[in-house]
Parts: sequence; structure tokens; C-alpha cells
Amino acid sequence: MKLIRFGAFGEEKPGIELDGKKYDVSHLVADYDEDFFANDGLKKLEEIASNDLPEIPADARLGAPVKRPGKIICIGLNYRKHAAESGMEVPKEPVVFFKATSSIVGPNDQVIIPKNSEKTDWEVELGVVIGKRANYVSKEEALDYVAGYVVHNDVSERAFQLERGGQWVKGKSADTFAPLGPYLVTKDEVADPNNLNLWLKLNGEKVQDGNTNDFIFNVQEVIAHLSEFMSLMPGDIISTGTPEGVGFGFKPPKYLKEGDVIELGIEGLGEARQEVVAYKG
Amino acid sequence: MKLIRFGAFGEEKPGIELDGKKYDVSHLVADYDEDFFANDGLKKLEEIASNDLPEIPADARLGAPVKRPGKIICIGLNYRKHAAESGMEVPKEPVVFFKATSSIVGPNDQVIIPKNSEKTDWEVELGVVIGKRANYVSKEEALDYVAGYVVHNDVSERAFQLERGGQWVKGKSADTFAPLGPYLVTKDEVADPNNLNLWLKLNGEKVQDGNTNDFIFNVQEVIAHLSEFMSLMPGDIISTGTPEGVGFGFKPPKYLKEGDVIELGIEGLGEARQEVVAYKG
Repeated sequence: MKLIRFGAFGEEKPGIELDGKKYDVSHLVADYDEDFFANDGLKKLEEIASNDLPEIPADARLGAPVKRPGKIICIGLNYRKHAAESGMEVPKEPVVFFKATSSIVGPNDQVIIPKNSEKTDWEVELGVVIGKRANYVSKEEALDYVAGYVVHNDVSERAFQLERGGQWVKGKSADTFAPLGPYLVTKDEVADPNNLNLWLKLNGEKVQDGNTNDFIFNVQEVIAHLSEFMSLMPGDIISTGTPEGVGFGFKPPKYLKEGDVIELGIEGLGEARQEVVAYKG
Repeated sequence: MKLIRFGAFGEEKPGIELDGKKYDVSHLVADYDEDFFANDGLKKLEEIASNDLPEIPADARLGAPVKRPGKIICIGLNYRKHAAESGMEVPKEPVVFFKATSSIVGPNDQVIIPKNSEKTDWEVELGVVIGKRANYVSKEEALDYVAGYVVHNDVSERAFQLERGGQWVKGKSADTFAPLGPYLVTKDEVADPNNLNLWLKLNGEKVQDGNTNDFIFNVQEVIAHLSEFMSLMPGDIISTGTPEGVGFGFKPPKYLKEGDVIELGIEGLGEARQEVVAYKG
């Protein structure tokens, strides 16, 4: 199943996409939030999906396919080649940081370069949406706790992240820095999350072109690891890191500017497109 | 005004404390969450406070006085003497990290030492609750964006924080690591947030005894700084750092063990008490 949310920013309603068409389920489901995932919402949605549902106009704005979750947990330097391009060592344990959930936008919304930014960068990432609360879970059982997967652009300001006094969250949390979607694909439709092509184009040129089989820590290992340090809650998003090809790794580095167009996608999880604009105060 | 939340964990209702007595306002106010603060909830609550309200039993369990917020943003090394005891330099800009909101508990709940932890530590901190959305605000106007203040024990696992692959969030986010309360004190009752005594006792012995006038970056500076990097949303909590006297700074270091009792408080913001227990799987 493919879950979407549609409508104006902050007023999104839940829907589903079936055979390329979009349907409204807001009369049957409140929203895709912690309660939904915690209370067998996906199972109920499957039953609903065969109903005669109202179709949504094809050009409706898409929001992030999950209502603002409790947390976005990101894994840093999780692809061998990206660790190399960042000039950092391959980590012995997953590098973990958070991203403010207030940075979430829809998959095709504008990305706004913050005030005083000179180093805003892109990062295509596989997002994992947690389906039920996870504490101290093993690698072997980790996927039982997954609801599905989503495309995430982990937009990053490198100066804020690395030159402003420590801890990466400062460069990861500006408004619009987390475009999510187009949809949440339930895990039954993803044969192996650790073998998916993912790519990102800047103004039509492919700059990232990787596969999650280059993960240092795969999805199961990441979930198991995180669950030792915190509760993973239904609806929480884990962003699993980015492959090589970010602007920071170019020689010389290359950063986003007003008018740029980002297109990104993951095999089986759809595509997204973001125009870049400057902050206007 | 003093805002409280009471009742079983996860099912708390909103109330207020007046002249040492606690009253239920749940028939008039949904909860103390983002919507409440964003929609002039505090003003409405003031009007309600003169009503004839049902009293709550004095021994009712208290929850955190804010419903799970969008984020807990913490400032590291924000007291000169604590930076020294941590063996770290005085930062040039605020050190910022996040804490999982799933770690929030009530002020007098148990603190659970996580599995595999040997270095669980205490940190009394002044928490600032945001009242309205803040972006790019100046120091001069920063306090306009504050709803009030709260006592926070920023419980920290030092090995998870510092020895497990970078980024402090790993050591800050376990369940029960954020006891908040007893109440949210609205800002009109706090003459100067940058001149408050705060203290923490371990098994009756005072181990932290500081004043927020030792801040490296005061409340206004912290708000202004953070608002350059992310939206501060109504209900968000900023935890402003801890004074000297954490277990990590003892020679040799001293960490929490089952049976310990933590008592902590801030001038005008009340007191909290937590028993320490080991995780039982």
C-alpha cells in the first residue's frame, strides 16, 4: 500500500495511492500519526482500500505522508563512499543525530535556504517509518517494528552543522529541511530495504547514484542499535544516511542556490522534486 | 500561574496550582500542548482560574506539565564552572543537542537506569517553555516568545553520550531521562530567569548548588541563537544547561545506582524527587 497525505500545508488529510490514482480516506481514518500506527491502522486501511473511495485531483499538493512524528532520527556517515568523501573515518557504531520535526514538508514543496546560509546541501536518504514501539530489539526481529519506507531529502547546512559550535542538529533543522514522500510504502512492498537504488539530480544532472547495499549498518542493525538508547515510537522516522555525491564532497564544494531544482527518488518508493528558494524575511 | 498535569502516565489531565492547592481544569481546557500555547491558552486559563474549580487530591500523581512537545532542545556546557569540570573549553556559541521527547516523565516518577548503563548521571536545569513560534528573533524581544519555566533533570548516560560514536543524543534519550515539573510557572511570576538558584541533592547531600547568573549564554541569547537555526514552536522546551556538580565531574566520577534518591529544585519553580531503579526487561 502507498499512503499519502494531501491538501494545504498543516491541513493535510490522509489518502492512499492505488494504480497511480489517489484516493481520500479522511472520512475513515483520522490521520497517519502515532495513534494510527499504534492501533493497527495499517490493517484497517487495507480493509478500507477495497471500498469505493473518492478520488483526489491528480494535481493536489502532497504533504509528508506521516503527520509530524515524535522524532526524526538520522544516521550519519552510513555509506562507505560518503564517509570517504566527507573525509571521516568509517564509524564503529552508528553516528546518531536528530533533526527537528518542524523541518518536515511535502515531497514537492520548496526548500528554503535559511538566512545567512552559504552551504545548504542535499542528501537523498531512505527513511524508515516505525510501526510499533521498539525497545531492546534484536537485528533478527527489527523489521517486525517497521511500518514502511519513505524518500527523505536530509537537507543540511554544512557551516551550521560543522562550524557553529558542535553537534550536527544545528545544521539539520531549518524549516523545509526535511521533504518527505511522495508516499509511505508499506514494508510488504519492499523486498529488501538493504538493496535499493537511490539517486538525486541537481538541475537535471545526477549527483547521487547509490544503492543501500553500500550501508555500513543496515536497516536491521540501525533499528536494533537505536532501540538500546531510546524508545522508537510508532510514526518515528529513522533516516538511514546518504550515499556519496553531496555538495560538500565536490571539489570545490557545490551548494544550493535560489532557482536550483532537486529531483530525487528511491527504487519502489517514488520520486520527489523540490525548487530551491532563498529565505525572504 | 502554575500549570500542572495530573493522573496516570499517558493519561494526564490539565490542572492548575493556586495557593498550594491543585485544581482540575480538564473540563475547560483540552491539554497543555502546541495548540494551547499557540491559541492564547494562557490568557484563557487566567480567566478560568477565578472559577469554582474541582480540587484534585493532594497526592495525585503529577505528569510533566506540558504534553509531549515537538522538541526538547538542550544547551551543553552553559555554565562556566560546569564546562571546567567537564574538561571542555568554554564554547564560543551555544552547544546544541536534542533529547528524545519519549524520555519525558513526571517530576516525581522513577528514573530508570537503562540496560548496559554504568554511567547514568544527573543534571538540574532550567527549562524554558516556548509560548509562540519564534524565527530569527533578537535578544531584546526573545522573552516575548516564552510561556514560562520548568524544572528539568536532564538525566544523561555519559558512556552512551561520549563513548558510543559521536553526537550526544545517544546518551540523553532513554525513557525517564527527562523528568519535568512539578509545574510550569508562567513568566510573569519569574522576575529574572538569569538569576535563579538551582540545586540537586543525591541521597540528601547537595551535589549541585548553582545560580543561572553563571550562564555563559543567558535565556535571551539562547532563544535568539536557536531561532536562527530552526523554528521554535509553541510548547517546545529549551533546557538551558546544568551547573557544576554532576557525577561525571566528581573525582573519581560518581554515577546513579538503584535505590538512589534525587531531589532537585529551582528558586520559584518548585521541587521534584525521583527514585532511581534499574531497568527490568
